[in-house]
Amino acid sequence: MPRLANIGCLATCANPVGQEDIGLIRDAALVWRDGVVRWAGRATALPAEYRQEPEWNAGGRLVIPGLVDAHTHLAFGGWRAGEFSDRIQGRDYLEIAAAGGGIRSTVRATRALDEDTLLDRAREFLSGMVSLGVTTVEAKSGYGLDLETELRLLRVYRRLDESGPVRIVATCLAAHVVPPEWAADRAGYVRLITEEVLPAVAEEGLAAFCDVFVEDSAFSADEARQICERGSDLGLRPKLHVDQLTGGGGAELAASLGAVSADHLEYVSESGIEALAQAGVVGVTLPLASLYLDQAPPPARALIDGGVAVAVASDFNPGTAPSYHLPFAMTLACARQRMTPAEVLKGTTRYAARALGRERRVGSLEPGAAADFAVIDAPDVEHWLYHLRPNACVAAVIGGEARHGVLPKA
Amino acid sequence: MPRLANIGCLATCANPVGQEDIGLIRDAALVWRDGVVRWAGRATALPAEYRQEPEWNAGGRLVIPGLVDAHTHLAFGGWRAGEFSDRIQGRDYLEIAAAGGGIRSTVRATRALDEDTLLDRAREFLSGMVSLGVTTVEAKSGYGLDLETELRLLRVYRRLDESGPVRIVATCLAAHVVPPEWAADRAGYVRLITEEVLPAVAEEGLAAFCDVFVEDSAFSADEARQICERGSDLGLRPKLHVDQLTGGGGAELAASLGAVSADHLEYVSESGIEALAQAGVVGVTLPLASLYLDQAPPPARALIDGGVAVAVASDFNPGTAPSYHLPFAMTLACARQRMTPAEVLKGTTRYAARALGRERRVGSLEPGAAADFAVIDAPDVEHWLYHLRPNACVAAVIGGEARHGVLPKA
Repeated sequence: MPRLANIGCLATCANPVGQEDIGLIRDAALVWRDGVVRWAGRATALPAEYRQEPEWNAGGRLVIPGLVDAHTHLAFGGWRAGEFSDRIQGRDYLEIAAAGGGIRSTVRATRALDEDTLLDRAREFLSGMVSLGVTTVEAKSGYGLDLETELRLLRVYRRLDESGPVRIVATCLAAHVVPPEWAADRAGYVRLITEEVLPAVAEEGLAAFCDVFVEDSAFSADEARQICERGSDLGLRPKLHVDQLTGGGGAELAASLGAVSADHLEYVSESGIEALAQAGVVGVTLPLASLYLDQAPPPARALIDGGVAVAVASDFNPGTAPSYHLPFAMTLACARQRMTPAEVLKGTTRYAARALGRERRVGSLEPGAAADFAVIDAPDVEHWLYHLRPNACVAAVIGGEARHGVLPKA
Repeated sequence: MPRLANIGCLATCANPVGQEDIGLIRDAALVWRDGVVRWAGRATALPAEYRQEPEWNAGGRLVIPGLVDAHTHLAFGGWRAGEFSDRIQGRDYLEIAAAGGGIRSTVRATRALDEDTLLDRAREFLSGMVSLGVTTVEAKSGYGLDLETELRLLRVYRRLDESGPVRIVATCLAAHVVPPEWAADRAGYVRLITEEVLPAVAEEGLAAFCDVFVEDSAFSADEARQICERGSDLGLRPKLHVDQLTGGGGAELAASLGAVSADHLEYVSESGIEALAQAGVVGVTLPLASLYLDQAPPPARALIDGGVAVAVASDFNPGTAPSYHLPFAMTLACARQRMTPAEVLKGTTRYAARALGRERRVGSLEPGAAADFAVIDAPDVEHWLYHLRPNACVAAVIGGEARHGVLPKA
């Protein structure tokens, strides 16, 4: 059984409760077999049966569960750098969207690409992500907005998950916006989703979740309810984009629909926070989107104090968060959302895994969990997220196999 | 003469005026000899005399002048990750400083290190900076606060500049804060600076500039005036930290003292903007410090619209900006200061060089300027600063020599 020794600081994230409890163990060791953690604890307490095993050396560094990016739009065509400049010069997101830019322009670029091209692009992003210590990625469709292209995007994600190394959890976001060809018949597009797209996705087993962008410029609460209820019937649990650009009871809706997560939440209300806490819905915050849109960040402190498990994700997409740099989003969550480094780590490991229904399989280092971890060149979590560098991850391991960097022998 | 061909987009920054004019040339070439640019222009216009020269290939990418980081505190002992968590939990910067933390704790850690140790630490940071495309760095003392340690820091900078590859411009910031041993005799500390530190610095030729942190917790306007006037007499031109935590006429003071730059400016007033513009003082904005202190950013748009040349720098230091990632600061300047990518590039090249009195020698690519440039994996400046990656710089060249990455032969 392979063993990682000389871990200066191990964050196991083994406790299912407590946003700030990351299960720190100083001077630790970690043992795994067949890709699964067998033992984690203080090096001095290592059971005799593991002492003869091959050993790698973490060099006294910080070791964390592999990061889980719980909200991305991974596969898309084109880029939208021009809109970045437009927003700086004062055009707002809804204005750009109303003029045919925004999501709809990425839809045009995505429909034009075949499956292999989309796959190659997404694989390059994943390669950058794993080098940062990200080992599980949620990936949404939503730039197809027709049956064929939505399925194409989800098939790309299935192929990426099968080929590895990064674990992919797919979400059908056919309800991202209403595409132009359905502008005069919104109900028709909702029917397309509920009667054709979701059944096809479920039949091929292409997604775990069904997501809806609930916003004035996208879908109403009633439309979201129709779509999510149909998704639930088909075994696709809801996730929702809510309360991002305007407050509208989105968090309450997510709670009432039994969503696994409610994402964005810049404008979440007090009653929304209460509803999320009572229903056990994870609140997924997306600091890069708040930054790129120059918005006030979501009230992470109020969410945590209200009893909501808060995750932090990249929202990687070509419009409002064109960066997959999750550690950078984590530093932003500290500085702008006033989350401590430990709270942010819990929100990118265990609580992020919870937002994907994968808790205890990924996002923690405890017996039975996947041997997915990252070795970070820092003495502790505070130093890592404070001293922001291009990349502080020196090795990333997935299922016990090194996928970035090299672990020296002891 | 070496030549860089196949430049998709060359930003020469050759125009001394116009924050947004970065002198873009599509399909360009660049020729240099003995470390100095000889020719820059459209590839089709390349003079015959340069056609037979050895050639490297930029692969159709963006090429920019080497970045100039116009405000850093490069050499210091220790780190202050604990204060990062403290601030997140609600303790403010001035409260931490009043309790003996902040700058004073770095002073203790810095005084404890010898010159070689400080040099090794600073060299490692410079190595990270050059990999990001930074080729000139302003470096301040200010963590010594006694004659011996201030000189030690400035000697570190001289050795780093002599050894290269990064060009160093040193600033004496003995007036960073009043050290504890002088707390009961502020006037005595100011006399130490004016009568001992600055004359010794000038005699050894250790710095180009004299800087003062003008703030309630540091030095008053009157004290700054005494120090800067003495510095000017000794040939050290003023630079000032002003209007960062509170507004207090700091920009007006910088203008009246003939400062080359006024740095921070979060609380600059309208009359301060007017004074900077009339006196031709560069306004150096520091988006990482605003982010880490969770402050509203400086009014960059008002500065630019008021006729001030605005630079963007990292402020790299162990307290309020523990990152030397200048491209990340540049993306922040776009998103939070509402500067366009072109304006930010001008502010990290030509205008940053102006803030160091080095304009036309560094910060632009025109005949006679140093052959300092970076090859960026992006089609243009907008795409580069929009699609934030760990590091998009594929090669950095200083004085015609590759110091990071590899330029393939054509």
